[in-house]
Amino acid sequence: MGVGLTEFLSIELATEHPQVIPISVFIAILCLCFVIGHLLEENRWVNESITAILVGAASGTVILLISKGKSSHILVFDEELFFIYLLPPIIFNAGFQVRKKKFFHNFLTIMSFGVIGVFISTTIISFGTWWLFPKLGFEGLTARDYLAIGTIFSSTDTVCTLQILHQDETPLLYSLVFGEGVVNDATSVVLFNAVQKIHFESINGLTALRVFGNFLYLFATSTVLGIGVGLVTSFVLKALYFGRHSTTRELAIMVLMAYLSYMLAELFSLSGILTVFFCGVLMSHYASYNVTESSRITSRQLHVFAMLSFIAETFIFLYVGTDALDFTKWKTSSLSVAGTLEVSSVITALVLLGRAAFVFPLSVLTNFMNRNTQRSETITFKHQVIIWWAGLMRGAVSIALAFKQFTFSGVTLDPLNAAMVTNTTIVVLFTTLVFGFLTKPLVNYLLPHDESHNTGNRDKQSAPGSPKEDATLPLLSFDESTSTNLSRAKDSLTLLIEQPVYTIHRYWRKFDDTYMRPVFGGPRPANQPEC
Amino acid sequence: MGVGLTEFLSIELATEHPQVIPISVFIAILCLCFVIGHLLEENRWVNESITAILVGAASGTVILLISKGKSSHILVFDEELFFIYLLPPIIFNAGFQVRKKKFFHNFLTIMSFGVIGVFISTTIISFGTWWLFPKLGFEGLTARDYLAIGTIFSSTDTVCTLQILHQDETPLLYSLVFGEGVVNDATSVVLFNAVQKIHFESINGLTALRVFGNFLYLFATSTVLGIGVGLVTSFVLKALYFGRHSTTRELAIMVLMAYLSYMLAELFSLSGILTVFFCGVLMSHYASYNVTESSRITSRQLHVFAMLSFIAETFIFLYVGTDALDFTKWKTSSLSVAGTLEVSSVITALVLLGRAAFVFPLSVLTNFMNRNTQRSETITFKHQVIIWWAGLMRGAVSIALAFKQFTFSGVTLDPLNAAMVTNTTIVVLFTTLVFGFLTKPLVNYLLPHDESHNTGNRDKQSAPGSPKEDATLPLLSFDESTSTNLSRAKDSLTLLIEQPVYTIHRYWRKFDDTYMRPVFGGPRPANQPEC
Repeated sequence: MGVGLTEFLSIELATEHPQVIPISVFIAILCLCFVIGHLLEENRWVNESITAILVGAASGTVILLISKGKSSHILVFDEELFFIYLLPPIIFNAGFQVRKKKFFHNFLTIMSFGVIGVFISTTIISFGTWWLFPKLGFEGLTARDYLAIGTIFSSTDTVCTLQILHQDETPLLYSLVFGEGVVNDATSVVLFNAVQKIHFESINGLTALRVFGNFLYLFATSTVLGIGVGLVTSFVLKALYFGRHSTTRELAIMVLMAYLSYMLAELFSLSGILTVFFCGVLMSHYASYNVTESSRITSRQLHVFAMLSFIAETFIFLYVGTDALDFTKWKTSSLSVAGTLEVSSVITALVLLGRAAFVFPLSVLTNFMNRNTQRSETITFKHQVIIWWAGLMRGAVSIALAFKQFTFSGVTLDPLNAAMVTNTTIVVLFTTLVFGFLTKPLVNYLLPHDESHNTGNRDKQSAPGSPKEDATLPLLSFDESTSTNLSRAKDSLTLLIEQPVYTIHRYWRKFDDTYMRPVFGGPRPANQPEC
Repeated sequence: MGVGLTEFLSIELATEHPQVIPISVFIAILCLCFVIGHLLEENRWVNESITAILVGAASGTVILLISKGKSSHILVFDEELFFIYLLPPIIFNAGFQVRKKKFFHNFLTIMSFGVIGVFISTTIISFGTWWLFPKLGFEGLTARDYLAIGTIFSSTDTVCTLQILHQDETPLLYSLVFGEGVVNDATSVVLFNAVQKIHFESINGLTALRVFGNFLYLFATSTVLGIGVGLVTSFVLKALYFGRHSTTRELAIMVLMAYLSYMLAELFSLSGILTVFFCGVLMSHYASYNVTESSRITSRQLHVFAMLSFIAETFIFLYVGTDALDFTKWKTSSLSVAGTLEVSSVITALVLLGRAAFVFPLSVLTNFMNRNTQRSETITFKHQVIIWWAGLMRGAVSIALAFKQFTFSGVTLDPLNAAMVTNTTIVVLFTTLVFGFLTKPLVNYLLPHDESHNTGNRDKQSAPGSPKEDATLPLLSFDESTSTNLSRAKDSLTLLIEQPVYTIHRYWRKFDDTYMRPVFGGPRPANQPEC
């Protein structure tokens, strides 16, 4: 498509269908991305996020050249598009395909990484930037800005690392990185919103406590909402037995109810991310069984949800890539090129430090807490390094929050704000490209493959509950006689003290099989070895 | 949700996320629709379109009451939303799940109904309105308006009838109604666009010919574009063998390429409907085989595409229902209540007449043309009545075209234009509700069920090529020896004269198996009894 043709078409269509051209271009680029991503799949250094960012940047360049330097609308990152249309399917799919057993076994560790970690990281980055920015001659930011910067750069992007780790090879590590990623996203968004509500004029000792209280409230209500919507959907599907009539209708209801849960959470100013995550967990646990046989195969193999998530993910990285080429904000920035590099380097250093400051201590603490359990799975130092590294990438959530804080509908005329937006873009590009580039070699170095590299089976759900995993779990028996109940109760009490998580899990499974599954759906215990 | 809460939320959210509330409301209503539609599935009178329109109207009333009569943004039909986001998945899914063999066997009949029929119907309605409207005191429309009205009311909505007919019970009838529906949509949109381009100041004898030539050009290029995109996608999927690596990626590529074909067609002012339909046909014929086994099951069982189509379809009828409650255009209308009813009645009568004027003659002609073939399947008079009735409903395409012709971005201040928009809404509501209501009883009266009512198997693909169908087809043999080729060629020539469609089809299958399938994908001939 030459310049002349594009301009002709722009004039022809601009009045009638202004979206047609950008949508067509973006879809074509997305398809290109998938093909290139596929061709580079066996490559040692590049992963799909990097591919998408680079393709996005290249396309942005081409668009800039065609439009002769005028910044096209296609290049501007729209924070609303991200939060309302792209993020929900990704997080829902994460909840839908999470290995629930692993996730809940490591629940405390994941929560400490995802919640306490973000608090530590935010504190370090906020104080660090507040201390160092003026020394670099970058002044004028308010206290709210510094706190916002702390939360913006505490949100990790673990997509890149998850593409390299394998759920079957390193289940503990995968579960920790994956779980932390979800909780971290939610925590940083919730904390960012909490920071917006601080009244800095009447700040006192209680402020931090109030922020934390507000955070806990949002966290709890969002989770409850997600679980509620998931249970209602499961119940409706089970009660009406849609599956008998239509296999598409119940998939449509699942998709729409999940999206509704996200929207409701946003409507009540809760965390949509947490809500839709737990909605996904509940739906894969109950609702996905309330469909006909053929449709259940689909939803377990996750094609609809995985596809939507895959498209949204690639779209975001493409978007970040093209957005980097939006030169208006580079021109508006108050910083020189050297100044921008200095500020970005400081932020990157603080990101490295802020993450190290919680990953290693919390891992040691977790290992110490678990020393009494029969689990052989401690977080080794190598694992700690990988967890640290996995959370160094900053992604679309950081960009979206930065746009929310420093622009008004994607546009900023204030040089200071423009400078922060460009710095965020640089940090995101640098961490994703450089750190992301080094992830594959690092993981391969620290965790040499014992098994053959099984990328081909990526989508294949591994056999339910591998024997090794189940060995560490107290075995469940469903043929209890009353005579053994007493000794069993004693054992249970001992277990509860020694292995709280496993014991809770055991009782949950019993409760689930007896009361929940008959109401909300799911296989009978006998033919269901997987939780 | 009380009035107070809604208002509070509106104020809170209006600045930050203006779409959140309408999206949430619409999704909740959609889910409600699915549940009600399911509960009413066995009902004799109501079908899903009617349910959706009634639920939409009810919701519109509630919204009007809550907003105290102020017309909310949620109620305005957005023609762009319809053409860019909702129509493509419906038409793609139609192409994807069409029984290709049946469709192409009846190709000539379908095309004559879908193309010649629209021309006849447009002529009758245009002249009828031009003759009758001034007699009712409704004056001021231009020649372009009358021609546009002709095309607007020639686009049928066969969704409702297709929900009642069964592909397995009455394959010929289903194929004709379904095929006509798709071709009709495309023809009326293309013709509508052709009418927009007529220069009425320099009208002469060649104008009609030029419109027809333009139409043929658009039809051919759109088809070629759709086939091209379908073949490219199939080839890419086959060449890269995506399936080995990822089952989600190739589904994503199929969805995006299909959408891209629609967008490209719109970009070049072709018919996106035709393009995406043929793209769907090609993809289900080739591309859907170029995926892993598990994913192929999915795409053949059509869950992703069927789900998207199902959501879009319900959404449209809901939309039409709520749009009817948008009172601003009722107030702007130049017509009194009685005048509106008169004009709407005239249009409805012309719709009935215009359709009868081509269904019965063209059916007789088709039967006459097919008298020499061995086909026992003639279009009986009962079938003709059902085909006539099936196309009486006017739907979302009519509304969308009316908005395009008579409003500017959904708003009109001209009393004459507002009158036409309200008349269109009334005709659509009347035909869908009243005629739609009578469809089930009519079909049951004309075609009493021989077999048991198999709604439960609606999604199940019937066994490929039932023996009865295949018996009417010249058998194909793949073990040809050179000695029999000559006599075979003679037979072929005789066949070609006697049964042109079947013979073309036979050669096509041979060509397909020998040259196309190896390049673009699909099963080997031996294990593929279905075309």
